[in-house]
Amino acid sequence: MTLDNSLSREENEMTALEILTRAKSLVSPALEAATQRLSAELSPVIEHHLLVGGKYVRACLALLSASAAGGDQETGLVGALAIELVHNFSLIHDDIIDGDLERRHHPTVWAKFGVGPALIAGDALSTLAFQLLLEVPSAERVAAAHRLADATQAMIIGQAQDIASEHKLSLTVEECLSMEAGKTGALLSCAASIGAVLADADAAVVDALADYGSHLGVAFQAIDDMLGVWGEPSVTGKPVGNDLRLRKKTLPISIANSKGFDIFTGDVEGELSDADVAEAMVMLDECGARYETMELAERELAMALDALERTPLASEPRAQLAIIARYVIERDQ
Amino acid sequence: MTLDNSLSREENEMTALEILTRAKSLVSPALEAATQRLSAELSPVIEHHLLVGGKYVRACLALLSASAAGGDQETGLVGALAIELVHNFSLIHDDIIDGDLERRHHPTVWAKFGVGPALIAGDALSTLAFQLLLEVPSAERVAAAHRLADATQAMIIGQAQDIASEHKLSLTVEECLSMEAGKTGALLSCAASIGAVLADADAAVVDALADYGSHLGVAFQAIDDMLGVWGEPSVTGKPVGNDLRLRKKTLPISIANSKGFDIFTGDVEGELSDADVAEAMVMLDECGARYETMELAERELAMALDALERTPLASEPRAQLAIIARYVIERDQ
Repeated sequence: MTLDNSLSREENEMTALEILTRAKSLVSPALEAATQRLSAELSPVIEHHLLVGGKYVRACLALLSASAAGGDQETGLVGALAIELVHNFSLIHDDIIDGDLERRHHPTVWAKFGVGPALIAGDALSTLAFQLLLEVPSAERVAAAHRLADATQAMIIGQAQDIASEHKLSLTVEECLSMEAGKTGALLSCAASIGAVLADADAAVVDALADYGSHLGVAFQAIDDMLGVWGEPSVTGKPVGNDLRLRKKTLPISIANSKGFDIFTGDVEGELSDADVAEAMVMLDECGARYETMELAERELAMALDALERTPLASEPRAQLAIIARYVIERDQ
Repeated sequence: MTLDNSLSREENEMTALEILTRAKSLVSPALEAATQRLSAELSPVIEHHLLVGGKYVRACLALLSASAAGGDQETGLVGALAIELVHNFSLIHDDIIDGDLERRHHPTVWAKFGVGPALIAGDALSTLAFQLLLEVPSAERVAAAHRLADATQAMIIGQAQDIASEHKLSLTVEECLSMEAGKTGALLSCAASIGAVLADADAAVVDALADYGSHLGVAFQAIDDMLGVWGEPSVTGKPVGNDLRLRKKTLPISIANSKGFDIFTGDVEGELSDADVAEAMVMLDECGARYETMELAERELAMALDALERTPLASEPRAQLAIIARYVIERDQ
């Protein structure tokens, strides 16, 4: 890390976890209350998913975004709720699409309740986000709802590109980054700016915060891609080289391809053998794809932090946004 | 039918089909153009679904709703588009949930492209509806978006209740009507009023049109339930007694239960045998459930038409709304 930051990695992590815990303690009860407006049939399904938890990174960004723009946490709360609803909708649907049986060591919604109830629960969460925002038709809430709709669509398109990539041998670095900007960056960018929109901030402030979120999203995804190949099984909960085994077209693969190293050849479907996974890992390391992925994550993190500097923001939430960004990138490398 | 209507059934049908064709010719190209804003990965999936077609009843109601309230078709168009997007999202997701392989003699989206692409395509359509409405943040568009979010949620909850009913032996008439009001009535009610909202009509006009749509929805669903049991296989494309075979908790079943006739007993899962289906059909007829379902549909239709009379509306679109209502109820009985 080339960060100009006075905190050690451990101190940064501890502070970040405190900030996240505060955000969660505010947003989690509001989220439960909001989802209880749904129906007796949906409640147990959604409750199960919410109990599995999460770090509330996006909700935290939404709250900090409001404070950074001069609003208070109350201003950002409805934005934080809406963002978390859309995020959870995407998790529930992604688990169906990927056929994943577990999330955070609990059965996924579809694995426990079936595809139908999971699909419907996701639909309900997504719709609830727009109901909540539009309940009060102020210019700020409407602008927030419009941004959220656009970000949700970008996320959905990113997911569609990811699904389509399963049937391809490779993605260019550009295609991969565009897919990841949609899948991960769009909602993080919306989270990091929706509070400012709700606080009626100037366009320059909103744009800077949105840029911070976009770059953070790309950095986050690059780290995710690294962990998918080289992550410690005890931390990721998945075997070494898991993304390789599943032939996922992640960033290190695209970078290797751009250097003339073909990681996946022949069939586009079926799992890679252990031997092929091991060979691919060596190749990715030797051709510099691992190093370049890490470098890209650091560059994007630096750009996220730069965005925070280019516009006037309240100093404490600005510092907290920087701490969260660093924490997200430094997790379990 | 006890309608005071000067048109014969055949004349009404012909006129209705003309009105629907006009609406479709306006909305269908706009719908295609709107969905092309999505991505290269989603386009073929959505195109396949749109090519399968449909009658555009909801889009037609949205256009007529604008004209009835003194607006023009152009005013209602974005509402018609948004309603059709939500309707098609629900069809694509319902086909996944029900495991249906065919729709209008074409493979359903999930059957042709897989669950993942179908799920994502539905998500994209639903989100696009809100993007379109919120693109212009006028008070009318925002009010329309809020109503659509609420109607979409009611539809989703109705679908959740329907899924949950699979594991029950019976629903009360009240539970069944509430489920159907959500599944079918909410979006029809929104369709029938969204044009008036976009035309900035008085609340009394909006409410009357929304009531027309709600009653039409219940009537429509009651007819659907009749066809599910007694419909001509050549018309419905499904075997006689199909809903019975699948143990669907539809209105005739609930009515029979309320009279002390248990149609489904013992197991709540697995298909009914041919003999059991035949026996159930006789029982439903003899206990008066068939007659009462028909009577309820006619009563709801009369209430839909009454709603059109209780508030000032432009006369031609009002007459056309009545023709559409009658057509929807008289289809293939």
